[in-house]
Amino acid sequence: MDFSSKLLEQAVLEMSQLPGIGKRTALRLVLHLLKQPEMQTLQLTDALSNLRTQIKLCKNCHNISDTDLCEICANPTRVKEIVCVVEDIRDVMAIENTGQYRGLYHVLGGKISPMDGIGPSQLKIKSLIDKVREGEIEEIIFALSSTLEGDTTNFYIFKQLEGLEIKTSTIARGISVGDELEYADEVTLGRSIANRVPFESSLKS
Amino acid sequence: MDFSSKLLEQAVLEMSQLPGIGKRTALRLVLHLLKQPEMQTLQLTDALSNLRTQIKLCKNCHNISDTDLCEICANPTRVKEIVCVVEDIRDVMAIENTGQYRGLYHVLGGKISPMDGIGPSQLKIKSLIDKVREGEIEEIIFALSSTLEGDTTNFYIFKQLEGLEIKTSTIARGISVGDELEYADEVTLGRSIANRVPFESSLKS
Repeated sequence: MDFSSKLLEQAVLEMSQLPGIGKRTALRLVLHLLKQPEMQTLQLTDALSNLRTQIKLCKNCHNISDTDLCEICANPTRVKEIVCVVEDIRDVMAIENTGQYRGLYHVLGGKISPMDGIGPSQLKIKSLIDKVREGEIEEIIFALSSTLEGDTTNFYIFKQLEGLEIKTSTIARGISVGDELEYADEVTLGRSIANRVPFESSLKS
Repeated sequence: MDFSSKLLEQAVLEMSQLPGIGKRTALRLVLHLLKQPEMQTLQLTDALSNLRTQIKLCKNCHNISDTDLCEICANPTRVKEIVCVVEDIRDVMAIENTGQYRGLYHVLGGKISPMDGIGPSQLKIKSLIDKVREGEIEEIIFALSSTLEGDTTNFYIFKQLEGLEIKTSTIARGISVGDELEYADEVTLGRSIANRVPFESSLKS
């Protein structure tokens, strides 16, 4: 693209570095900002640079936080003996939205993925094992997505925990509530039959 | 969405003000920036705020420009007697890419659209009429998109030019080069027959 303005070109170039934003979309977004009051652009740039320079990771669970200890870890009413292992903050938000979980989290920051060059040392796995060693945790719930990378990561952590006295569990896989059986994939349906639960316990939730 | 961090929440909120970017996409983009070096975010925010605060509109054609007079208007080799009327800088870039046009532009900044509350006074129409009155322009080429709004805008300008000695034309509508006749819509095909051109002139381009 041939821009008549260096300022415009630079803004489009930086915007198109974002994932899923091509040059055309970047130009559309930047031209939109030019039509809006100057205030809107400055609020956006302030919010982004404040976030990037001031954000912290909770020193206990590694979740994104404004403070040294995140709101969840600092909350005295949460059950500190149960830790749910997730990939990133989006999973924390999804589980928090259910209102069904009262324990803490441990945010790995990704999944083991040799294809993307991510090994165990790039993830917050060691601090999880250390926490277990200190003996304060009773149960670990694996809640990574059930992909090859997720399963690999689960298994790696599981092996690291060998010999330590800890209960491990994984979130239940099965047919989504409201879904028709006939459209479910075989693996999910097969697992949901193998891991069937007593009828009375399904009445509770 | 329930964010554990006010900084994150603010950044997602500002990002989701952009057109076509929902809260979920905004969160994905912001988390991406957090994973990248701090430099990338600062380059993005600098580029955006520099653009918004320093950009100018060319005082002749109203195109986006770093200088008072844009590169095209300042170029002594361009034909100053022909002016192509377009909606915004994207149209200028599209026409410049063809390498077929040597005249100047006049960027309206939009189209007349009562539905969106855009009337003639919000567009750069008066300065176009003034330029014609000064008698330096010989031909105006209308190159707005052929929508209801585009046609309305063309017609409004055309009426304003009544009584002034000026040649007006509009870009040719027809079958795209390489397209199959059978898939063309009737209006386009009908116009391309009505406005047929001498065979010899089709050999030139």
